[in-house]
Amino acid sequence: MPAYATNMRLKFPIVALILEIITIILFAVFVVYDDGEGHGHDGDHSNSTHHTPQEPMALYPMFQDVHVMIFIGFGFLMTFLKRYGFSSVGVNLLLAAFGLQWGLLMQGVWHLTDGKIKVSIFKIINADFSTATVLISFGAVLGKTSPVQLLIMTIMEITIFSINEHLVANVLGANDIGASMIIHAYGAYFGLAVARMLYRPGLRNGHENDGSVYHSDLFAMIGTVFLWMFWPSFNSAIADPGFTQLTAVINTYLSLAACVLSAYAISSLVEHKGKLDMVHIQNATLAGGVAVGTCADMNIGPFGAMLIGFVAGIISTLGFKYLTPILASNLGIQDTCGVHNLHGMPGILGGLAGIVAVALGKKKNCCLASSLGFALVGGAVTGLIMKLPFWGQPPDQNCFDDSIYWEVPEEEEENEESLAHADHSKNKAEV
Amino acid sequence: MPAYATNMRLKFPIVALILEIITIILFAVFVVYDDGEGHGHDGDHSNSTHHTPQEPMALYPMFQDVHVMIFIGFGFLMTFLKRYGFSSVGVNLLLAAFGLQWGLLMQGVWHLTDGKIKVSIFKIINADFSTATVLISFGAVLGKTSPVQLLIMTIMEITIFSINEHLVANVLGANDIGASMIIHAYGAYFGLAVARMLYRPGLRNGHENDGSVYHSDLFAMIGTVFLWMFWPSFNSAIADPGFTQLTAVINTYLSLAACVLSAYAISSLVEHKGKLDMVHIQNATLAGGVAVGTCADMNIGPFGAMLIGFVAGIISTLGFKYLTPILASNLGIQDTCGVHNLHGMPGILGGLAGIVAVALGKKKNCCLASSLGFALVGGAVTGLIMKLPFWGQPPDQNCFDDSIYWEVPEEEEENEESLAHADHSKNKAEV
Amino acid sequence: MPAYATNMRLKFPIVALILEIITIILFAVFVVYDDGEGHGHDGDHSNSTHHTPQEPMALYPMFQDVHVMIFIGFGFLMTFLKRYGFSSVGVNLLLAAFGLQWGLLMQGVWHLTDGKIKVSIFKIINADFSTATVLISFGAVLGKTSPVQLLIMTIMEITIFSINEHLVANVLGANDIGASMIIHAYGAYFGLAVARMLYRPGLRNGHENDGSVYHSDLFAMIGTVFLWMFWPSFNSAIADPGFTQLTAVINTYLSLAACVLSAYAISSLVEHKGKLDMVHIQNATLAGGVAVGTCADMNIGPFGAMLIGFVAGIISTLGFKYLTPILASNLGIQDTCGVHNLHGMPGILGGLAGIVAVALGKKKNCCLASSLGFALVGGAVTGLIMKLPFWGQPPDQNCFDDSIYWEVPEEEEENEESLAHADHSKNKAEV
Repeated sequence: MPAYATNMRLKFPIVALILEIITIILFAVFVVYDDGEGHGHDGDHSNSTHHTPQEPMALYPMFQDVHVMIFIGFGFLMTFLKRYGFSSVGVNLLLAAFGLQWGLLMQGVWHLTDGKIKVSIFKIINADFSTATVLISFGAVLGKTSPVQLLIMTIMEITIFSINEHLVANVLGANDIGASMIIHAYGAYFGLAVARMLYRPGLRNGHENDGSVYHSDLFAMIGTVFLWMFWPSFNSAIADPGFTQLTAVINTYLSLAACVLSAYAISSLVEHKGKLDMVHIQNATLAGGVAVGTCADMNIGPFGAMLIGFVAGIISTLGFKYLTPILASNLGIQDTCGVHNLHGMPGILGGLAGIVAVALGKKKNCCLASSLGFALVGGAVTGLIMKLPFWGQPPDQNCFDDSIYWEVPEEEEENEESLAHADHSKNKAEV
Repeated sequence: MPAYATNMRLKFPIVALILEIITIILFAVFVVYDDGEGHGHDGDHSNSTHHTPQEPMALYPMFQDVHVMIFIGFGFLMTFLKRYGFSSVGVNLLLAAFGLQWGLLMQGVWHLTDGKIKVSIFKIINADFSTATVLISFGAVLGKTSPVQLLIMTIMEITIFSINEHLVANVLGANDIGASMIIHAYGAYFGLAVARMLYRPGLRNGHENDGSVYHSDLFAMIGTVFLWMFWPSFNSAIADPGFTQLTAVINTYLSLAACVLSAYAISSLVEHKGKLDMVHIQNATLAGGVAVGTCADMNIGPFGAMLIGFVAGIISTLGFKYLTPILASNLGIQDTCGVHNLHGMPGILGGLAGIVAVALGKKKNCCLASSLGFALVGGAVTGLIMKLPFWGQPPDQNCFDDSIYWEVPEEEEENEESLAHADHSKNKAEV
Repeated sequence: MPAYATNMRLKFPIVALILEIITIILFAVFVVYDDGEGHGHDGDHSNSTHHTPQEPMALYPMFQDVHVMIFIGFGFLMTFLKRYGFSSVGVNLLLAAFGLQWGLLMQGVWHLTDGKIKVSIFKIINADFSTATVLISFGAVLGKTSPVQLLIMTIMEITIFSINEHLVANVLGANDIGASMIIHAYGAYFGLAVARMLYRPGLRNGHENDGSVYHSDLFAMIGTVFLWMFWPSFNSAIADPGFTQLTAVINTYLSLAACVLSAYAISSLVEHKGKLDMVHIQNATLAGGVAVGTCADMNIGPFGAMLIGFVAGIISTLGFKYLTPILASNLGIQDTCGVHNLHGMPGILGGLAGIVAVALGKKKNCCLASSLGFALVGGAVTGLIMKLPFWGQPPDQNCFDDSIYWEVPEEEEENEESLAHADHSKNKAEV
């Protein structure tokens, strides 16, 4: 691949500007403020039918928690790579900022009121949710894709997500309050399918930049802890108000707490000399939030939630240790962040737990199958499109390196130090 | 300038202690808790006249979002400098902590109830707002001023701000809900006027510490992202409750999202090889929040908000690229953080958008003119006072360097490494 | 102490898994969701008797603020050590995740409804609070204890905390809304007693890793600022709704603001050349939140709160400067984070302020005495248990070093650089 192919000077600005202009035009035609009349909430969460209308701002604190998860949580979680922090948090911002606009349109189109999409706090929470699928998939291809490729993925993934969400929620009538299946499993398997299509034989033996340094691991913990803390909001934001919402909060709170213990225990058990591994701690401690998602608003009992989290922490940690290497070497799936372990398997676990938890098992089956089907087929097609040779994909040697798409400051101090050393050495040598 | 002039041992503690003691005495005389009786809200936001009184804690989640913007947002945004992070986040805390007390007094004095200032959540939100003006100006003079100088600036700037705010809101009756003009433009031009007064010819050719390192840019992104996420709260916190507040949230949410796309696109367009520049991403992505401020609670349509954000992202990025160097070289305005591009021009754009958006154009004209006038004159006078030679201003060579005002840890590892290298070199040399 | 004793491969996973399984079983037997019937709130905060029942989710935003303080605030505050960031934020997560489960059980056992603990937002706020005691004590022994030791401390400390809390609140009927005594002083003196038991003569002259580097101090400021911002929620979360809660917010907001000024002033006054010391700024700026705790919901006047904060900032800074070295050298109490200065003395100050503030002085006396008594005796006993030689305590030379319990990334760049230097030197030498 010739080096100039990664020069984004015209390609990226044109794509970004055109996408934004088209989006603004679509908003001008279709989108108005919610005025509290003629509500058409998403079918899967038709809380407007269950109770009196809420204050327009009632969900705003929940929204802000979810917002923090999307922009700080996902953004910083991916800064663990030593030379890819700008892209992690910066491209995360770009994709989520575009994705939430696109998600508002794609999700809204199924619920028009007088031909318009009425924006409410409920709708912007769902728009933020739709971007989560993209950010999960981003984790699978982190370091190996250009911003243009990722914008294309954003459009494709959110469009297909909205179709699947509409299908399972409104047509099949399945409930997935914390979105274990329709967001986490979908996002993970979509990303894995894309990663498979973009397989790079040249990275089979790893890459010197595909690892962390001490402080990059600490930056990543900012993401982990914010995701961990606000996950109860993620799983309860669009639940029915009152005690149902409380149940979703408590189940998620307890599932995550139990998950921490099992993730730490298994990390220590499988690692050299019983040491903890930051990759596990950064990710597997969150699996309890994913896995309890589908059941979050159900009466599974506090201990039931804890059991789900406990198992999720074990599965996720074992996945990082044993499954990720196998996926890479045998199936050609190079999953940079291990999203299969954090969102994929725990998402499926969550779907299965939901099937066990309720008599509505069949609907859930369909929901899980539909989400996985759309993810794998959609991801594969998207991956093929992204593979076209003019989207500025980085060559192998520039993977996991911000400097191909960003102005990166020279580490002057170190350079100066090097010079100082060199001079020093020279002096010594000359003596 | 003699070196001892920067020794803060007596100067700073005495100023800080005396200011705080005076403030406590003023609070003892004038300030009581809000007891829900005889409310006198700020005239520009007289929501108490429009609806029944709210619960005393109703605005508390909004307050906390604004609080995070002030202390984490502004504080970490300025940590981009490689050796000035302690001062950025630390002095930010100092100025904001003092400023909010001073702001409560200065803003409250116009709205006494029975001769007392009654502190409510509404009032502490406004107190936090008043500190934002100082933190914006701080950005313009970052790295070139002493804590004592900055405390003086805090007193002057908040006092003048409160006069201007009272004038435009209560006397002229203009509305500036998100404060594009009375906070952002005011803070920016005040800071620029101060920077002009403190012009340092010795920094014309830059300074080795006036730049970032890799991790300092990541710390700054913590500030950027928290500001970006919570800006909808900034622009809606004191809006009329209900659908008006919802409108302010949605307009800001969408303006910021559109702004990200244009800021990224233009950054890539104007930079070498189409690479993204962290300075643009850290700042210009926020211009949409500034620019939509004045119009935030108006019915400009979601697409109208997006247009404003889109244009703001372009103007702001171009400002960083082309205008900042001109201001420095031709006008003697050395704007460390580029606040002119993030708060100045987008603030004026916001004011102009407000003039276009409503028939009340004339009031807005006055509001914009008044804010700019007070900022420039007030900033110039303040700058002259700050220029007096006994406030501990750092000499040119110590600018942008924490170690002049902070105990800075030696980077032992590097030192040890240096020694190791030196020894190693020596051995080699001796062979 | 033999090196293998720190190998956690079996010890830690077994302890963690068994604890979690026992906890899940206890939850299965005792814990159900709150259904709004038969409320039995903690006796010390029996707000259900004062007013009509609240919405089940009314306290959720408050809960999330407290949650952020526990996991981000305490976690990052302790990352100031140059090589102990993984443990600070990682073990903080582990202890708090287990502690909140244990706290729910221990606190709930005093308030059973039909033999069950009914989990509400109120209960999980209190569960988070109970973990704060452990995290405070963790600060005293930071860097010198193994995860297994700390899990044991968590069980002991929360169990004893719950007994003391029940005694002072329900039996003695004392009020300590912001928990100056029952959380801060208790946690500090418990930790100091443990630290005394674990005294290490080998660390008398310090340890090369017991210090910060530039960026670790910035990570710590993330913790400081989040604690500072959300402390009003900590002190008001379980106050009576309405104006009482507002009072608690305003008192804490103002106390912290005044505390910043005095902490900065004294830090500059006592340090070399008037420079600010990051240790003071990171910690003493928070003392106002601790000290105003007991009085937070009382009508002490805004200036009264500021006075308390002002004094707390002075005492705390002076404690770091002068008392901590004395405690270490004369009493054998090696207090890594200086929790005596942040939580100990300000906590006692808060208790004393409470005694002065109300006629109920006698109850408060008992509250303070009880909290200190339980802390010192409980901490001493816990320290003795932790001293048993099979919990994997690190030898002196491995203190303050993540690499004993964590896989730590090699700093490849530096290594490469070293090699480059070495080669370079060699070439020079060979010339």
